[in-house]
Amino acid sequence: MQTKTLTLEEIEDISFRALVAAGTSPENARPLAVATAATEADGVASHGMAYIPIYCEHVQCGKVDGQAHPDLQESAPGVLTVDAATGFAHSAIDIGFESLVPMARSQGIAALAIRNSYNCGVLGYHTARLARDGLLAIGFTNAPASIAPSGGAKPVVGTNPISIAASGEDGEPAILIDQSASTIAKSEVMKHAREGKPIPEGWALDADGRPTTDPEVGLKGSMAPSGGYKGVGAAVLVELMAAAMTGATLGIDASPFAGTAGGPPKTGQFFLAIDPAVTSGGGYAANVARLVGAFQEQDGARLPGDGRKAHRLRARTEGVAVNVATLEKIEAIIAG
Amino acid sequence: MQTKTLTLEEIEDISFRALVAAGTSPENARPLAVATAATEADGVASHGMAYIPIYCEHVQCGKVDGQAHPDLQESAPGVLTVDAATGFAHSAIDIGFESLVPMARSQGIAALAIRNSYNCGVLGYHTARLARDGLLAIGFTNAPASIAPSGGAKPVVGTNPISIAASGEDGEPAILIDQSASTIAKSEVMKHAREGKPIPEGWALDADGRPTTDPEVGLKGSMAPSGGYKGVGAAVLVELMAAAMTGATLGIDASPFAGTAGGPPKTGQFFLAIDPAVTSGGGYAANVARLVGAFQEQDGARLPGDGRKAHRLRARTEGVAVNVATLEKIEAIIAG
Repeated sequence: MQTKTLTLEEIEDISFRALVAAGTSPENARPLAVATAATEADGVASHGMAYIPIYCEHVQCGKVDGQAHPDLQESAPGVLTVDAATGFAHSAIDIGFESLVPMARSQGIAALAIRNSYNCGVLGYHTARLARDGLLAIGFTNAPASIAPSGGAKPVVGTNPISIAASGEDGEPAILIDQSASTIAKSEVMKHAREGKPIPEGWALDADGRPTTDPEVGLKGSMAPSGGYKGVGAAVLVELMAAAMTGATLGIDASPFAGTAGGPPKTGQFFLAIDPAVTSGGGYAANVARLVGAFQEQDGARLPGDGRKAHRLRARTEGVAVNVATLEKIEAIIAG
Repeated sequence: MQTKTLTLEEIEDISFRALVAAGTSPENARPLAVATAATEADGVASHGMAYIPIYCEHVQCGKVDGQAHPDLQESAPGVLTVDAATGFAHSAIDIGFESLVPMARSQGIAALAIRNSYNCGVLGYHTARLARDGLLAIGFTNAPASIAPSGGAKPVVGTNPISIAASGEDGEPAILIDQSASTIAKSEVMKHAREGKPIPEGWALDADGRPTTDPEVGLKGSMAPSGGYKGVGAAVLVELMAAAMTGATLGIDASPFAGTAGGPPKTGQFFLAIDPAVTSGGGYAANVARLVGAFQEQDGARLPGDGRKAHRLRARTEGVAVNVATLEKIEAIIAG
């Protein structure tokens, strides 16, 4: 793969211009462009610039409304709701977070429920922002159904990630967990299908719920839940929060995130922001430091979030090597 | 195993009398006795009456203060904190829930953080109570460390369960998830050790982080996380909520829940209660019904919580068959 190193500002700028060229309003394009640069900085290239051409195509086919105006309501002293109006999740989240942070500080805890939304990209990007404001954040987002119940074979819930970000002393999250409910990301199975390669057993199941090593068969069947029935439980937990609790569309009814068919997915996001100083009586920072230390004192032990953090700190000074083929696609969109 | 059928009232009564005979105050004994009957009704015998002799022993050795007065504070408009004062978790939770339910209704969301606490038994018992009040509840509780980091071998977090209970139309939770972060409960490994039986590969790891089939070796090593690193992530998420966010003792520093050594574990619980009507704009009940239906229309598909619910409805009229050996132990405590 041929790469070119860009600064984070360059990644944001080129992403922004492509989104606007495709018909996205500047207010909706900006938060998505900022998130794209941050995702590349975190080293999650699969969800970085590679998604810009997809976002642009989705604006053009109407899967997402690039001109949407998200509608924020204060539904209770501790609850904000946003109707994303089938626009990008990122601007809905931005508008919600602006009120969520002060609400969490004054109430001790606050919730943000987003409906009529779209794929929010890397969930941990959003929770990390709240952690940088000194809060503990949990995020939930649902996706089109691809995981079947234990004992069943037909998908009922998506690979539905959950993320928690715990504020740290240095401004960055001390711990950042961001994990889906499936053994492996669906995009990995799709990649194997494109490349005509078999998948390892344990990644996906066929339409009768039996293990398969054929990625095409797996895509017509279901994704294997991580840890069996507990992975189904994790996905259902997230579905309850991101869809049932927001009034968004369930994964069983949502149009696909990939491709151009089916119109807006109208899925949802739910965020919790909590002030650790209020709930812990002051014990939070010492406990987090001691927990992080218990991981770090073991050679080779991986603390969730450490990989992204190291990548991020490096990217700020060194920039990120991006795929030239992706870059050329984005430049073609800008050129029109 | 010889059994005898008791009504739920009889189970509550005998549990209450044993706890009081061992030195528990009536105010602390009652919620624990009620929970014991409910746990037997749910068919979770491992955490029902079998625990009463252990609770009594723990009162007598000082691992739990049977006379404790939990101290409730309203720390913010949306946050309650309880210092359980090294007493039983159940009375601390009871006192907290009494204020949590109206707070969640008026604020839309409310949190309860409990420190200086003890093993809370079946976590889903507590979340289900909030669901019966028409709320969606999430619960977190931490335990002495027994799961090692990915790439490490020394335990850093407990098997730390998470539970979500979603209110249903018939008063009972429509969905109840209650699952630990390990592949299997530690009590199963302990049972195999007592019986001198090997454990299946994948349940536990030795002190160097390698798979073992020897339960004694596994107990000196660590419990295998469900789904590998994602199980570690689930346990860390719960540790952050139940210990870091409450100011409770981390799993790495907590005394064991089993046995009489080490004094009070001082672990924690964290509960979230959210009003679905506020966050979902009215779409909650239809979404939950449709999600439940997607499970039920598949032959053999298991909906989380359905097993306990069926058991519970039956137990209300038929009572529960309890172990006579356990019953005799409890009667001996009452007789003094």
